[in-house]
Amino acid sequence: MHNTIDTQIGQHMHDLVCKLFPICRSLTGDGVRQTLTILQKEIPELTIHEVASGTPCFDWSIPDEWNITDGYILDPNGVKIVDFRQSNLHVMGYSTPINKKISLEELEKHLHSIQELPEAIPYLTSYYKRDWGFCISHSQRQTLQPGEYQVVIDARLGPGHMSYGEVVLPGISNQEVLISTYVCHPSMANNELSGPVVTSQLVRWLSSLANREYTYRVLFIPETIGSIYYISQHLDHLRKNVIAGFNVTCVGDDRVYSYLPSRNGKTFADRIAQHVLKHHCEEFIHYSFLDRGSDERQYCSPGVDLPMVSIMRSKYHTYPEYHNSMDDLNLVTPEGLSGSYMALVRAILCVEHNATYTSTVLCEPMLGRRNLYPSQGGRVLPEKFRYIKHILAYSDGQHDLLSIAEIIGIPMWELLDIVEQLTSQNLISPGETEHQTAHNQTAV
Amino acid sequence: MHNTIDTQIGQHMHDLVCKLFPICRSLTGDGVRQTLTILQKEIPELTIHEVASGTPCFDWSIPDEWNITDGYILDPNGVKIVDFRQSNLHVMGYSTPINKKISLEELEKHLHSIQELPEAIPYLTSYYKRDWGFCISHSQRQTLQPGEYQVVIDARLGPGHMSYGEVVLPGISNQEVLISTYVCHPSMANNELSGPVVTSQLVRWLSSLANREYTYRVLFIPETIGSIYYISQHLDHLRKNVIAGFNVTCVGDDRVYSYLPSRNGKTFADRIAQHVLKHHCEEFIHYSFLDRGSDERQYCSPGVDLPMVSIMRSKYHTYPEYHNSMDDLNLVTPEGLSGSYMALVRAILCVEHNATYTSTVLCEPMLGRRNLYPSQGGRVLPEKFRYIKHILAYSDGQHDLLSIAEIIGIPMWELLDIVEQLTSQNLISPGETEHQTAHNQTAV
Amino acid sequence: MHNTIDTQIGQHMHDLVCKLFPICRSLTGDGVRQTLTILQKEIPELTIHEVASGTPCFDWSIPDEWNITDGYILDPNGVKIVDFRQSNLHVMGYSTPINKKISLEELEKHLHSIQELPEAIPYLTSYYKRDWGFCISHSQRQTLQPGEYQVVIDARLGPGHMSYGEVVLPGISNQEVLISTYVCHPSMANNELSGPVVTSQLVRWLSSLANREYTYRVLFIPETIGSIYYISQHLDHLRKNVIAGFNVTCVGDDRVYSYLPSRNGKTFADRIAQHVLKHHCEEFIHYSFLDRGSDERQYCSPGVDLPMVSIMRSKYHTYPEYHNSMDDLNLVTPEGLSGSYMALVRAILCVEHNATYTSTVLCEPMLGRRNLYPSQGGRVLPEKFRYIKHILAYSDGQHDLLSIAEIIGIPMWELLDIVEQLTSQNLISPGETEHQTAHNQTAV
Repeated sequence: MHNTIDTQIGQHMHDLVCKLFPICRSLTGDGVRQTLTILQKEIPELTIHEVASGTPCFDWSIPDEWNITDGYILDPNGVKIVDFRQSNLHVMGYSTPINKKISLEELEKHLHSIQELPEAIPYLTSYYKRDWGFCISHSQRQTLQPGEYQVVIDARLGPGHMSYGEVVLPGISNQEVLISTYVCHPSMANNELSGPVVTSQLVRWLSSLANREYTYRVLFIPETIGSIYYISQHLDHLRKNVIAGFNVTCVGDDRVYSYLPSRNGKTFADRIAQHVLKHHCEEFIHYSFLDRGSDERQYCSPGVDLPMVSIMRSKYHTYPEYHNSMDDLNLVTPEGLSGSYMALVRAILCVEHNATYTSTVLCEPMLGRRNLYPSQGGRVLPEKFRYIKHILAYSDGQHDLLSIAEIIGIPMWELLDIVEQLTSQNLISPGETEHQTAHNQTAV
Repeated sequence: MHNTIDTQIGQHMHDLVCKLFPICRSLTGDGVRQTLTILQKEIPELTIHEVASGTPCFDWSIPDEWNITDGYILDPNGVKIVDFRQSNLHVMGYSTPINKKISLEELEKHLHSIQELPEAIPYLTSYYKRDWGFCISHSQRQTLQPGEYQVVIDARLGPGHMSYGEVVLPGISNQEVLISTYVCHPSMANNELSGPVVTSQLVRWLSSLANREYTYRVLFIPETIGSIYYISQHLDHLRKNVIAGFNVTCVGDDRVYSYLPSRNGKTFADRIAQHVLKHHCEEFIHYSFLDRGSDERQYCSPGVDLPMVSIMRSKYHTYPEYHNSMDDLNLVTPEGLSGSYMALVRAILCVEHNATYTSTVLCEPMLGRRNLYPSQGGRVLPEKFRYIKHILAYSDGQHDLLSIAEIIGIPMWELLDIVEQLTSQNLISPGETEHQTAHNQTAV
Repeated sequence: MHNTIDTQIGQHMHDLVCKLFPICRSLTGDGVRQTLTILQKEIPELTIHEVASGTPCFDWSIPDEWNITDGYILDPNGVKIVDFRQSNLHVMGYSTPINKKISLEELEKHLHSIQELPEAIPYLTSYYKRDWGFCISHSQRQTLQPGEYQVVIDARLGPGHMSYGEVVLPGISNQEVLISTYVCHPSMANNELSGPVVTSQLVRWLSSLANREYTYRVLFIPETIGSIYYISQHLDHLRKNVIAGFNVTCVGDDRVYSYLPSRNGKTFADRIAQHVLKHHCEEFIHYSFLDRGSDERQYCSPGVDLPMVSIMRSKYHTYPEYHNSMDDLNLVTPEGLSGSYMALVRAILCVEHNATYTSTVLCEPMLGRRNLYPSQGGRVLPEKFRYIKHILAYSDGQHDLLSIAEIIGIPMWELLDIVEQLTSQNLISPGETEHQTAHNQTAV
C-alpha cells in the first residue's frame, strides 16, 4: 500500500510548480492552454476541452478570451518602472488594452497596492467589468512623482474560448470520486499551483492502481466559471454518481493542515477528510462552510449538493501571502506538497476500501485454531488481536469500516490488512455498499 | 422596522404600571374589572369576558368572587396598626370576612411575615381553603404586645364571576401566536404589572402592523384558573392553530434577562426565544422547565402541548422582592420595561418573517451585474456581500431563515433587508411554511 | 422496598465466597459441579445441566472434561516445592497429565510467573491447545537450581460433560431479564466468586418478590464457551424476550464502581445502569465496549445483540490482583459485595417499575383538594410537591419514569411512592410498556 511520504515525489512536484510558475494564466487564454499541455506530459490521460465565449451556463455565460503580450508603465523620464515581463501580477487580470499618456493623478485611479504589505504586488482581476489596471508594491507607489506617464497594455479581449482539462479513470463501479482543481491564476504558488500539481500526482498514482473500485473524474478548470460550466453540462450525472469529492487548493506550504466541510457537513467525504486529518497530522483547523471561497461554492450549492470537501494547508484568505507576490516558490515546499499529497492518498484509500461487513459466525468465532488468537488465556492481549476482535464485534452490517476505525480510534488504513485476513478466512463478508449521492439524499 | 429601544415607550409603560399599582386585584373581583377597563383605554380591541362562579373547567371550577372594601387591625389601645388602605398586601387574598376581638395568641395564628426580610410585607392567598389572615412586616410583628386585638376584614366572598380580557388581531394566516399575561396580583410591580403593561404595548404595535402574517391572540387572565378555563373552552382551536406562544411575566426590572422553555424545549417558540436573547443582550439565564411556575404549567401540560415560552427579566421565585411589598414601583423601571418590550418585538419579528427560501438559480448567481457584489475580485469581501452569499447558499428549501441566521451567527432581523432584496430580484423564493402545532406534532 | 444496604447480607455473601474459594473450578469438571451444588443450597430453584463434550455450538464445540487430583514439582533433592493442594493456581488449567523427570531447562519452558508481581502466582489456562504447565511466584522461580525435577500432574482430560446452572423465575410478563455470571475460575475472589455469590443473593431476593413484573433467567456458566453454548440453544427465545441483561462479574472489592455498556450502548439496560450508578455512588468509571472481556462479548455479538451490560467494581484487566493469587479473600469484602448487590437490586427495581404514564386530567389537576398541595399559595414549594407536579407534567405517554427521574435529577426509586399515590388517586395511568428487544430492534 502506498502509505508513506516519499521525498522524491515532493521534489518532483516542486519542480513542476517551478516550471508552471512563470506562465500567465487567467480564466481563459493561451496561458491556461500552455499549462494544460505541460500537465498532459505528466498525465497523458488529460483531455483538453474548449468552450466558446458566450456559451450560456446557468446564470452566467463563458466570458471573452483574454491574452496579454506585454504591459508596462514608463515614468515621466521614459524609464520603464512597471513591467509585466518581470511579474505577470503587474497587470490586472482581464485588463483592456491601452496605450496612452496620462497624468499621475489619472494613473493613480488605476493603481493597486497593499498598504499593510508595502513590498508585495497584489493580484487583482476585473473579469466582468471592462477596466484596466496595474498592481505594484506600495513602496514603489509612494516614490511616483507628478508628471506624464505612458501606460501600455498589449492585450486582446474578445470572443474566443475557455479551456479546461479533464481526466476520467474508470473503476469497477460507476460511482465516482470527483477531484477538482483550478488553473486560472498567474504566478502564484500555494494558491494556486500546488493544486494542479498535487492533483496530477494523484492522477499518476490512481492510474497505476490495479483494481480501482471507483471511477475518478478529475478536473483542471478555471475557478468559479469553470465549475459552473462543468456542472451545467453534467449536473444529472454528477448528482447521480459522485459519492465523494475533493477540491484541491492551497496544498503547498508546510504550515498547518486544514479542512473545509461540504455544505451538508456530514457526507461521506466529510467523514473521510476528518478521519484522515485526525490521524495524518498533529492538529488541523476545522473551518466552517461559512469560510468557503473556492469551487465548493458551486459544487455544494442548493440543487447541486455534491459531497465536496477541501483538505488544505494554509487556506486562501487566511495567510499573509494570499493573492500577492509573496505566494511564491519559497512558500511552497517539497515537504508541504508531499504531505498534502499523502493526506489525499489516504483519503482515497479510505474511499476505496470502506465497506460494511457482516460477521459470518454467530458469537465470537474460535480464533485460536485460525492463528488469530494466542493459545494461552491469561493476561494482556496484544493490539493486533484486539483489533481483530473489534472488527468482528462491529461487523454487524451497519457499521462501515470507517466508523469502526473511528470507534477503535486508529487510522482506517491500519486495519486494511486485518480486514483482508478476516475476509480471506471467511469470517466477515462485505455487503453491498450503498453510497449516498446528492441524487438519493433524503435529508440534510 | 420597529427595532430600536424607545425611551418614550418605556416611560409610557412605567406610567401605566404606576396607574394600575394601587388597585387590589385577585383571581376575581372588581379590581380585575377596573384593571381591564384601564387597559381598554390603551387597547380598544380588548374584550372583557365574565365567567360565572361554579363553571366547571377540567379538574377545576371557577371560584366564588372575592371583593374587599377594608381590612385592619386595632391594637389593645384601639390604634390602627395594620391597614388594607395603606397596602392591599396586608390582607391575605380571598380572606373571609371577620370582625372580632381576639387575643394576641389567637391573632398570631393568622399573621404572616418573612423573618429573613423583616421590613417586607409578604403576599399570600388562600383561594381554595376558606381562611382569613393578615400579612405584616416581621419587624412590626415583633412589637406586638399581649392584649386584645380587633380584626376587621370587610370582604364579600360568594357566587359571582371571573373576569378576563382578550384581544384577537387577525392576520393573513389562520395560524396564531398566543400571548398570555395575568392580572390577579394586587400591588406588585415586576410580578405582575410589568406583564399586562408590556403586553398592552405589544398589542398597540401589532395593531399598527400593515400586513400581519399571523393572527395574534392575547389574553389578560387570572393566573392558573384563567388559563385552565381558557384552554378548556378553546383546546382544539389552540392545539390546531398556535405556532408560538409567549407567556409575559416578570418583564419589568432591569436586571438579567431569562428564558423559560416550553415543556418540549425545541419548539419554534423556543428556537426564537433563544435566538432573540442571544443577540438582544449580553447574557441571559436559561432556565429549565423544572423551574416553571406560571401559566406554561397549563399551556404545556400533556394533551395541551402548546409551544409556550417565557422571555423574562428576574424570574418569579428567584429574586428577593418576589411576592412581597419590595416588588414595587422602584423595582420596575422604564428601561427594564422597554428592553423587555423590544425583546418581545424582536421575537415577533422573527415569527412574522421566518420562512424557508429556495434559490431560483443553480450554482451561485452572477451577483456583479445585479450590484450585489464588488466588481473587482481580490481581497476581503465586505460583510453584507458575505451575508448575501450565505443566504443564497443555504436557501435550499430546508433551512429556514432562523436557522440560517443561527448558522451565520447574527440576529435574524439584520438579514431581513437582504432577504427582501434577494426576493425582489427573484434570486430566492419563499416556500410554504409548514409550522408545527400541538395538533401535528409527531414526536417530542 | 428493599433499598438500603444490609451488613448481614454482606457478611453472608462473604462467608459463601470463603466456602467456594478452595474449589478448583475450570471450564468443566467436578469443581464446577461441586460449586453448583453448594449454590443449590442457597437457591433451591437452581437446575444443573450437563452438556456432552463434542456438542457443537456455532463455531465451537464443547471441550473435553478436565479433572485434576494432584500436581506438584519435586526439586533435585526430592523436596516438594510446588503443590496444587496448597494453591490450585499452581497447575495451569486444562494441563495434560504428566509424571516425568526433566531438567531445569526443560522445566522452565513450562513455568509461568509475573516479573512485575514477584510474590503472586499467575492464573493461566490452555483450554484449546494440549499443553501442561505450572504457575509459580517469580521470586520462587528465581531460586530454582539446575538439576533434575520431577513434575507430576494427576489429571484426566477426555470426553465428559460441561456443567452449568440455570434458574428461571417466572413473572407476570413473558419478557425477560437475563442475569449471567460464571463459575469457571479456581481460587479467585473478585474475578470470579463475587459474581455467582452476588447473583445467588439476587435470586433469593427476586424469588421472594410477590409480584414480579418480568421473568428472570439466571445463568451460572463457564465463561465464553458457556454463553456461546447457551445462546446457540436459545437464540430466538433470548432475542425475542430479553429486555435487559446484566453480566455479573467483579462485584466484590470495595474500590470504585464501574459500568461496561452493551455494544449498542443505548439500550434500556444501559440507561438503567447509568442511572443507578449516577445515584448509587459518588462516581463510577464508564468503560467503553472496547474494554469488554466477559460474556457480553457473546451476548452483544452481531446477530445476538442482547441488551447486556455490566455493573462492576474493579473491572477485570484493570486491577493488579487480576488473574493472580492476590485476588483473594481479603480483596473481596462484605461491604464490597453488599454495595454491588444493592446496585443490582436498584437496577432491577428500575426495570420492574419503569413504565410510561399518561396524565388522566387535562391541565394540572387540583392538587389541594387531594392533599397533594399546600393550601396557601405563597413562597417556596416543598420538594415532594414539586416532584408530584413534575411527574404529572411529564406523564405524557412518551416519557417513561426512568427519563422523568433523569429530568428531575433524582433516583427513580425515590419516585416510586409518589407514583403509587398518583396512580391510586387515578391522576396518572400506566400505558402498555413496549420494550425493545434484539428481535424488534430497528436501528443501532
